[in-house]
Amino acid sequence: MGFPNLSTTLIPHLLLIIIVGVATASPPSVASRFSKFSLSKRAPRFLTKFSHPIKPHQHQEYRYETRYFYQQLDHFSFSDLPSFPQRYLINTEHWVGPDRLGPIFLYCGNEGDIEWFAVNTGFIWDIAPRFGAMVVFPEHRYYGESMPFGSGDVAYKNATTLAYLTAEQALADFAVLITDLKRNLSAEGCPVVLFGGSYGGMLAAWMRLKYPHIAIGALASSAPILQFEDIVPPETFYNIVSNDFKRESSSCFNTVKESWDALVSEGLKKNGLLQLTKTFRLCRELNSTEELANWLESAYSYLAMVDYPYPSAFMMPLPGHPIREVCKKIDGCPDGTSILECIFEGVSVYYNYTGDVDCFELDDDPHGLDGWNWQACTEMVMPMASSKDTSMFPTYDFNYTSFKEECWKQYRVVPRPQWITTEFGGHDIKAVLENFGSNIIFSNGLLDPWSGGSVLQNISETVVALVTEEGAHHIDLRPSTPEDPDWLVEQRTAEIKLIEGWINSYNQKKKTSFNM
Amino acid sequence: MGFPNLSTTLIPHLLLIIIVGVATASPPSVASRFSKFSLSKRAPRFLTKFSHPIKPHQHQEYRYETRYFYQQLDHFSFSDLPSFPQRYLINTEHWVGPDRLGPIFLYCGNEGDIEWFAVNTGFIWDIAPRFGAMVVFPEHRYYGESMPFGSGDVAYKNATTLAYLTAEQALADFAVLITDLKRNLSAEGCPVVLFGGSYGGMLAAWMRLKYPHIAIGALASSAPILQFEDIVPPETFYNIVSNDFKRESSSCFNTVKESWDALVSEGLKKNGLLQLTKTFRLCRELNSTEELANWLESAYSYLAMVDYPYPSAFMMPLPGHPIREVCKKIDGCPDGTSILECIFEGVSVYYNYTGDVDCFELDDDPHGLDGWNWQACTEMVMPMASSKDTSMFPTYDFNYTSFKEECWKQYRVVPRPQWITTEFGGHDIKAVLENFGSNIIFSNGLLDPWSGGSVLQNISETVVALVTEEGAHHIDLRPSTPEDPDWLVEQRTAEIKLIEGWINSYNQKKKTSFNM
Repeated sequence: MGFPNLSTTLIPHLLLIIIVGVATASPPSVASRFSKFSLSKRAPRFLTKFSHPIKPHQHQEYRYETRYFYQQLDHFSFSDLPSFPQRYLINTEHWVGPDRLGPIFLYCGNEGDIEWFAVNTGFIWDIAPRFGAMVVFPEHRYYGESMPFGSGDVAYKNATTLAYLTAEQALADFAVLITDLKRNLSAEGCPVVLFGGSYGGMLAAWMRLKYPHIAIGALASSAPILQFEDIVPPETFYNIVSNDFKRESSSCFNTVKESWDALVSEGLKKNGLLQLTKTFRLCRELNSTEELANWLESAYSYLAMVDYPYPSAFMMPLPGHPIREVCKKIDGCPDGTSILECIFEGVSVYYNYTGDVDCFELDDDPHGLDGWNWQACTEMVMPMASSKDTSMFPTYDFNYTSFKEECWKQYRVVPRPQWITTEFGGHDIKAVLENFGSNIIFSNGLLDPWSGGSVLQNISETVVALVTEEGAHHIDLRPSTPEDPDWLVEQRTAEIKLIEGWINSYNQKKKTSFNM
Repeated sequence: MGFPNLSTTLIPHLLLIIIVGVATASPPSVASRFSKFSLSKRAPRFLTKFSHPIKPHQHQEYRYETRYFYQQLDHFSFSDLPSFPQRYLINTEHWVGPDRLGPIFLYCGNEGDIEWFAVNTGFIWDIAPRFGAMVVFPEHRYYGESMPFGSGDVAYKNATTLAYLTAEQALADFAVLITDLKRNLSAEGCPVVLFGGSYGGMLAAWMRLKYPHIAIGALASSAPILQFEDIVPPETFYNIVSNDFKRESSSCFNTVKESWDALVSEGLKKNGLLQLTKTFRLCRELNSTEELANWLESAYSYLAMVDYPYPSAFMMPLPGHPIREVCKKIDGCPDGTSILECIFEGVSVYYNYTGDVDCFELDDDPHGLDGWNWQACTEMVMPMASSKDTSMFPTYDFNYTSFKEECWKQYRVVPRPQWITTEFGGHDIKAVLENFGSNIIFSNGLLDPWSGGSVLQNISETVVALVTEEGAHHIDLRPSTPEDPDWLVEQRTAEIKLIEGWINSYNQKKKTSFNM
């Protein structure tokens, strides 16, 4: 079993990419080609794709001190391994201190540079003063500056050095760091509240379950903790992406749906790849149609994640309601324009909103140093599929055997697809949350394709779901803006109220036990 | 800093041993010698000291199948390590099966051969039929036959091979094993109840906290989960041992208390060690008085643990109320007998109840392959001290620096004394249990010196303490006998009722959710 037409890395990206093999010159039909050819659906990537250390000028108001804390590389064994410096950002200017049990707001750093998260998680900065809270942003190991083995080059060298890039180790890092920090500040009594978005939201929820003695509650925003094994249907993600398009315009949805066949047909023509390269203004000639398909799928999936109601520059500079704008272009395509030209006009809203781009690069991860790929190939195995019957994407079935082979080829590692559910609970996670969890907010916007793998129902009085119809990927964690719609303001108000409740209840108990 | 007079292994045993240095021939006073000399208090050992695979004939009624399950050596990293076969014993003859949600009773194997635990944990076998329960006894990694790297010799070779002998890995073993077992039996819906005594009781309680989705409740018998850092005073263990003696006879207590000075004085005499060797009928000549002190302390500590009200042969063949019998000998010592001879008569009840012993061996672990020493030198750091003011033992302060040095010498490993409390909760464990734990029984007998580090108060409606005045080390887990006193019968009845409650409540919820 090989993957003949894969020119880029084979491991699952967090943005699923359809790889359309073009192995024969005499295709029977486009539909059967999609099913016959070697397809490899990559696991979708979260929003951290571009989480390189960008410090936007507009966020200079976020002041923090940068510190480093030496961590065990393997908390769960006593192998003689080098410790590594974990970077963390800290701000204590609003903290009311240990005597007044000043809260500690701990952001669970996820798969990227922590400074990027710090400046994109305005909610914490916005609310810290009213809570008299300290703010701490620890970086996730193997990202940003928190590199084991002295450098990213060594840390990412092979499976032996990458071995310790796991969620459990990251949670233990947070636990050890915050315990030490509190001890040094004589702040053992101060309540810790966890925050996190996307994978970071998963970490926040899991941390609350696994380390209830460390933190009193967690705001887990857009945290797809159910996106494992067969807990949710594997088509969920792409169905939601598609519905986001259909919701804006069913003709737009249909055009995208039809474009895949057009793409394959075009690619099979003589000089077809060259023509496609020109149509899509690519910087270098296409090697295969799947390269282009990947690029388009990336755009659609990210658009669904960042389908915010106001202009944003989270990943790309984008208008408000960007899917609406993309569909306007696609639907407004002049008569006689080819379907692929219309698609190009549409995705240009995503890839070139500013109009500055001369030509488009296809590879979104040129240096190949991508920790999330490793995580997806080891424990974060999120099966992804799509169906042409329920989405605007071609049918693709998740094939674990192929997935495993790709991971072996790329990293010489064997995934453990059942480990996360064994460690954190899976199919019965709702029973777990109901019986043993408390003080967790699962916030989701239904436009977010990750919402389908998250918790969307209230589980108990203290494990609650805050769901917004119009929200996208962890929009609630973003800084407040004058353009915030009412539902977003209300969502954040509800979150603040719940967090206040946790802290008050904690303080009350603390008081009672002091008086005992 | 050295440990000049240590002839045996230097690492902390689970039975603390006073090492009395004899560095000078002109002692100022006995009392100051105890404080000046290089002392090394070893961490007390649990009852598994003799947990070699003994299959008593009287327990042939325990029928089980022996199976092996291949486990990851490091569940929390993806290092390329060999898997290893975990042995487990299983009995399904009383199990009512998945359709009737037959419970699974899972014993959390601790630091010894699992067959030894299986035949010494009659409670589970006694009650399984009435619950229609399956019984599973998984062995703890690095003990018995569950050896990584193909053999005990390799597994115990050095710190590199021993590195994965940790409590967290053992819990993950249990979680993975039971998840797989249930899946293979289509028994995902069947409730799992955890059992464990001593370190195994700690594992059961921790497992219930960390893996609430795996098990619905835990009977944690004699589980000293608070015996870390400074949560309980480090003198607790030896104070309880001493009180057990004082309770039987204050003159006996006083004789033991005075014997240490006599021992040191005797050892300093010309040919003193030879004389002591004769008095105590040792098989080989003493190298130092501390060897003898260790041997005596072992006896007192174990006697306190197994101070059962009926004859037992858990470790040594012993009469019922063995401390009473020891004190009878000590108190009944004829006039004119030296104090050390009286002591010898007393401990002979422990070391030679059958009267078969010709001479006594001092080394209790001749082959030196003792996983608990490794665990005590890594994460299970339980500070132990004694005070001559509150106990019958000489004053000894726990010195972490010395402890660390011994561990480094022995294993080339650095302990992580704060890790267990970070991972499982420590000082605030009661708040954790109250707020996030449920369905845990902490059973303890107050004669057991480990009871001081356990949970002795009800925490909530479902986290309860069952405390017996007259109980010793996890006596409730032993098989029922006709000699069981009423309080023991009542304790077991209470445990059965609580476990029934957990299962009924689980079944009720299951039913409700089926009907939804």
